[in-house]
Amino acid sequence: MIIMHKDATQEEINHVIAEVQKLGFKADVSRGESITIIGVIGDERNIPFHQLSILPGVKETRMIETPYKLISREYNADHATNRIIHAGEVEIGGKTPVYIAGPCAIESKAQLFRIAEEVKKAGAHILRGGIFKPRSSAHSFQGLGAQGDSEAREALTWLRDAGRMFEMPTITEIRGETKVELIAEYVDILQIGARNMYDQDLLGVVARQGKPVLYKRHFGASVEEFLSFSEYLAVEGNKDIILCERGVLPTGKGKSFTRYTLDLAAVPAIQEETYLPVIVDPSHATGRRDLVYSMSCSAMAAGASGLAIEVHYNPAESWVDAAQAITADELKNIIDTCNRLHALAVENRKKAFNKPGR
Amino acid sequence: MIIMHKDATQEEINHVIAEVQKLGFKADVSRGESITIIGVIGDERNIPFHQLSILPGVKETRMIETPYKLISREYNADHATNRIIHAGEVEIGGKTPVYIAGPCAIESKAQLFRIAEEVKKAGAHILRGGIFKPRSSAHSFQGLGAQGDSEAREALTWLRDAGRMFEMPTITEIRGETKVELIAEYVDILQIGARNMYDQDLLGVVARQGKPVLYKRHFGASVEEFLSFSEYLAVEGNKDIILCERGVLPTGKGKSFTRYTLDLAAVPAIQEETYLPVIVDPSHATGRRDLVYSMSCSAMAAGASGLAIEVHYNPAESWVDAAQAITADELKNIIDTCNRLHALAVENRKKAFNKPGR
Amino acid sequence: MIIMHKDATQEEINHVIAEVQKLGFKADVSRGESITIIGVIGDERNIPFHQLSILPGVKETRMIETPYKLISREYNADHATNRIIHAGEVEIGGKTPVYIAGPCAIESKAQLFRIAEEVKKAGAHILRGGIFKPRSSAHSFQGLGAQGDSEAREALTWLRDAGRMFEMPTITEIRGETKVELIAEYVDILQIGARNMYDQDLLGVVARQGKPVLYKRHFGASVEEFLSFSEYLAVEGNKDIILCERGVLPTGKGKSFTRYTLDLAAVPAIQEETYLPVIVDPSHATGRRDLVYSMSCSAMAAGASGLAIEVHYNPAESWVDAAQAITADELKNIIDTCNRLHALAVENRKKAFNKPGR
Amino acid sequence: MIIMHKDATQEEINHVIAEVQKLGFKADVSRGESITIIGVIGDERNIPFHQLSILPGVKETRMIETPYKLISREYNADHATNRIIHAGEVEIGGKTPVYIAGPCAIESKAQLFRIAEEVKKAGAHILRGGIFKPRSSAHSFQGLGAQGDSEAREALTWLRDAGRMFEMPTITEIRGETKVELIAEYVDILQIGARNMYDQDLLGVVARQGKPVLYKRHFGASVEEFLSFSEYLAVEGNKDIILCERGVLPTGKGKSFTRYTLDLAAVPAIQEETYLPVIVDPSHATGRRDLVYSMSCSAMAAGASGLAIEVHYNPAESWVDAAQAITADELKNIIDTCNRLHALAVENRKKAFNKPGR
Repeated sequence: MIIMHKDATQEEINHVIAEVQKLGFKADVSRGESITIIGVIGDERNIPFHQLSILPGVKETRMIETPYKLISREYNADHATNRIIHAGEVEIGGKTPVYIAGPCAIESKAQLFRIAEEVKKAGAHILRGGIFKPRSSAHSFQGLGAQGDSEAREALTWLRDAGRMFEMPTITEIRGETKVELIAEYVDILQIGARNMYDQDLLGVVARQGKPVLYKRHFGASVEEFLSFSEYLAVEGNKDIILCERGVLPTGKGKSFTRYTLDLAAVPAIQEETYLPVIVDPSHATGRRDLVYSMSCSAMAAGASGLAIEVHYNPAESWVDAAQAITADELKNIIDTCNRLHALAVENRKKAFNKPGR
Repeated sequence: MIIMHKDATQEEINHVIAEVQKLGFKADVSRGESITIIGVIGDERNIPFHQLSILPGVKETRMIETPYKLISREYNADHATNRIIHAGEVEIGGKTPVYIAGPCAIESKAQLFRIAEEVKKAGAHILRGGIFKPRSSAHSFQGLGAQGDSEAREALTWLRDAGRMFEMPTITEIRGETKVELIAEYVDILQIGARNMYDQDLLGVVARQGKPVLYKRHFGASVEEFLSFSEYLAVEGNKDIILCERGVLPTGKGKSFTRYTLDLAAVPAIQEETYLPVIVDPSHATGRRDLVYSMSCSAMAAGASGLAIEVHYNPAESWVDAAQAITADELKNIIDTCNRLHALAVENRKKAFNKPGR
Repeated sequence: MIIMHKDATQEEINHVIAEVQKLGFKADVSRGESITIIGVIGDERNIPFHQLSILPGVKETRMIETPYKLISREYNADHATNRIIHAGEVEIGGKTPVYIAGPCAIESKAQLFRIAEEVKKAGAHILRGGIFKPRSSAHSFQGLGAQGDSEAREALTWLRDAGRMFEMPTITEIRGETKVELIAEYVDILQIGARNMYDQDLLGVVARQGKPVLYKRHFGASVEEFLSFSEYLAVEGNKDIILCERGVLPTGKGKSFTRYTLDLAAVPAIQEETYLPVIVDPSHATGRRDLVYSMSCSAMAAGASGLAIEVHYNPAESWVDAAQAITADELKNIIDTCNRLHALAVENRKKAFNKPGR
Repeated sequence: MIIMHKDATQEEINHVIAEVQKLGFKADVSRGESITIIGVIGDERNIPFHQLSILPGVKETRMIETPYKLISREYNADHATNRIIHAGEVEIGGKTPVYIAGPCAIESKAQLFRIAEEVKKAGAHILRGGIFKPRSSAHSFQGLGAQGDSEAREALTWLRDAGRMFEMPTITEIRGETKVELIAEYVDILQIGARNMYDQDLLGVVARQGKPVLYKRHFGASVEEFLSFSEYLAVEGNKDIILCERGVLPTGKGKSFTRYTLDLAAVPAIQEETYLPVIVDPSHATGRRDLVYSMSCSAMAAGASGLAIEVHYNPAESWVDAAQAITADELKNIIDTCNRLHALAVENRKKAFNKPGR
């Protein structure tokens, strides 16, 4: 990274960017209140730091060892500022938590619209609905989108229309590079599922759509790996990345009583490392309807910026992941409680450790 | 387990107990408001259920498949009732959360008394202090207790006296079967550390002291294993067991940014399975001072019955685990916030799922 | 699955296949010496078994619970027969082990040809060379293929030509759905790396090229998951799948001394479940040059069908994964020793457990 | 550690030892062909290296960072020499592998003697038999030893007598500090099971019996932790430690098809770090009779110094762990094959990497 002098001119900054590009690299610019930092993107073995450090206006050049640079607080020109991501009218990463809700899989227009109406009333901000489902068995239902392009378009239209009708931006999971553009036509936030966390090429295609990305941690990934692969989104110039913790592999022999182990300490730990917002998915993490409430509260108390929750008017009939869906009534209680918990926990966190902005 | 008729007489109950004992087993009696259940303790391959089921007053006999029987809600005569454990004036598992605080290791009388005074003022209920320390290196400081019996007695006396002076029951970790009786002479609650979770013989000796036991989950144990080994305490007739979640092995390559992965979903999951109270240790779980606040809040929102937190007036000088100790000021903020979070989360949990008593 | 009568006519078999297709499913036919089995591929909730079971020539229909059906021994008409996969003149899964060797990443034409010549002399059968490299950091060298399409074609041409010159079929790793056809033009075996194990859409595209696929287990996947996702290849009609064990996440705090934990018991365990060949990659598993010999021997003694090993004439200079490459001399010693170990272990395995064909 | 001059006199060495002891530490002496090293045992924060480095005959003093010092090759005066451990006539860690065999649990005198005779004929060197069984359920059979002291003595007598009759040293697992002396009266090698790996106090008591110790790795322990806790045996002055790999926690969701994941790369990795012998237990690792052969072969090819295998004349009737016991016939085939595999693998290992003595 190249740190510019406080009084570097815009001309000097432009000159540095041009030089970086001439050398075959991409430049990423982070402007803070008092300083500007230019990140150099490319194979880091070949960056000629010496050459760059003597350009006019350059204060110093520094090699950042960590594989996540562009998304790190250290690199950010304003260390203490969090990134707020906009999807329609909704702000993710701001002062109040954001709730994403909807069915695991879209089953029909009627099902989606009914659930959309219910979650809106319950207080949700963003509407989710699965159209392309990654499944562990090749012989399971793979989502309406898997049945053909016209079925996919139809379901995407429902999602877009339900979002418009109930005034919520929409989100759905991407599956397969070739579907990205189609999906981006219809939805506001593109979700990369846990199993695709490592799929660097998919990450590139998704990031290049220029829309916010909800990026889920793989269940076998450390926090460091999660952040390092997030960087594959950022190097495409898209930093509208919402990180999502959804549980890691359980430990030990015998029953864990939850589908995954929700790693809530990762929430504040990630917030220390990066300025990106972190949300939590208690539905997939626990796989148990009766634990969604507790883990929602817990995530909020940990300081998460939001929740993604699966809702169905008749959970037992849900085609996919029936064991973890809750009703809109339950969602309402969660949202009401969580808003208060979040305010309480975040307010006193600032007091305790005197960390402005986090 | 033997379920007695509602109107079974005390004589019939006594007769069944006597028969169980005659057959070479131990009997564990659980009396509910309306029914009485008698557990049969011993090698389960040899229990003659047929013979027992025809005794007068017996309604039915049932084999419980799970290895944890005596501590399970299913076995308990009053399913919905939680066990409240008494240590001095303190109730663990009741309506309000309990805070255990103190130094990781007792370093001197002055250090202990100063910290005891501070944590009492901050709102702590129980005083902790390590005297026998299990360490991962044989070449590290093993606690004052390891220096000899007189040093051990001296440190134990300090702990007892500090507890008396500042009106807090005390707790310290057990290390080694031969030290159990000595420690039980001085302290109110006996702690079995995570690394000793599987040590069945130690569990037996500790349980037989008749004092409350704080029992920590091993970092490689599933919830099922944790509960199954708790049963080794219960079969000794001691059900004053406080379960403690303190983090499991992190997943994935690279840095996890926390020492262990705190499994907070285990808190409500365990509460479904057993009537015993569950507390959380955010200090060892994260190994990071700056995450203790967030994980304390998170644990409370998950419904934990209390917290165990390491406190030092000068964390950086702490002989053991310096990176995770917090100050009493920080503790006070945590306790104040956590009390409110706990009340909020537990109150609405009941509303949401209509689960009386949990 | 539909099991046909022993004396079912070809006409009856064709009729069943036609009916399956008319119902909107795909049919997969497994012909054994005495029986024929027809697998029904599609969303398993909707298969009308009753309707199919009364067709002429059908002996019985059976729902296979496991998510891996087409690749299971149970489904296979000849349970005891292993699948032999052909790549050029090389047989994978036959009586003698197969050795895949070459550089981790192709660095230049000269580098590749020199290594190709050396590994051929050492006894290798198949030439590997990375062109598109999945890397954990977005700022690392991503392979020559990542530099552009013409660079990719050039490197692929080198690989094809080196394979022809030294008479070895070739293999390289796929990265990204859009590159699959390009790569399939040039190489004989398509490799899906561990990080892409869960990428169902990539699996589909790769399988449809009709070439043998080397499929690596993800480091966070159980054996069951590995086999379940292999099924995504098989449902495309491509059963030329070479499974590859390359290590899972290490357990425990502190150093494991190897990059991953090589799960060698998975080799015979997988051989029980499926008729597909299993090979082992000791280079990535250990990440240590000095352990490649031992783990190669160990894999062979476990009954693996082959090894994939990274070789460089100057390991220390290797651009990628320098710590794990060995020299061709070391490879020669490994191949000579492993051939003898494999013969010895497999021969006596048959004697011991009387399992013909495995 | 204190490295003495080549020509340091015995008097100088004794003087250094005396000084170390005067300072309140224990001294551990390692004499090589040309040099002598004195290890200082105690709380390493307090060792006055300066004071020791100026004593006559001292060449240099060095702080070893690793928590395993006394068992490390680095510390050993002859780096390349492996430790050979003697139990009766049997050498563990020598040129030929050693086979420990017998029933999981001793069920009766007849059962033990019959199995002892059979395994001796099959080629076993050491007789194992469980008397105190650590079990995951408090309601399972805990071994004959748990039924009382006289039953324990009786079973121990059988084991001793069977060992004498069939000329094999004996081994049994320790459970509980208070049983150590009793067991040490009767058996030749004391086994510390995986679940007790972290039990530092038990380790101390066992080591002080002065008999060889078979020490099993916990299923949640890294190699580094395993070695660090072995040090708790060594600091008692007992270096007759046989390390045993028996599998770690499986990774991933769904079935792993083996009870644990046998970490065979740990065998050569540990051999690099320490001079102690490493053996493998394929029975507990896999939990599957049909995989014992393959994993035995695999362990031998990895260079293990021996195997511990559970044998029963009628595996299906075995009271404990019935699924993993093999017959003596199967054992014989394993031993015959393994001897040849071991010779082949070890011989060529030396050739390959030119590592004398390993």
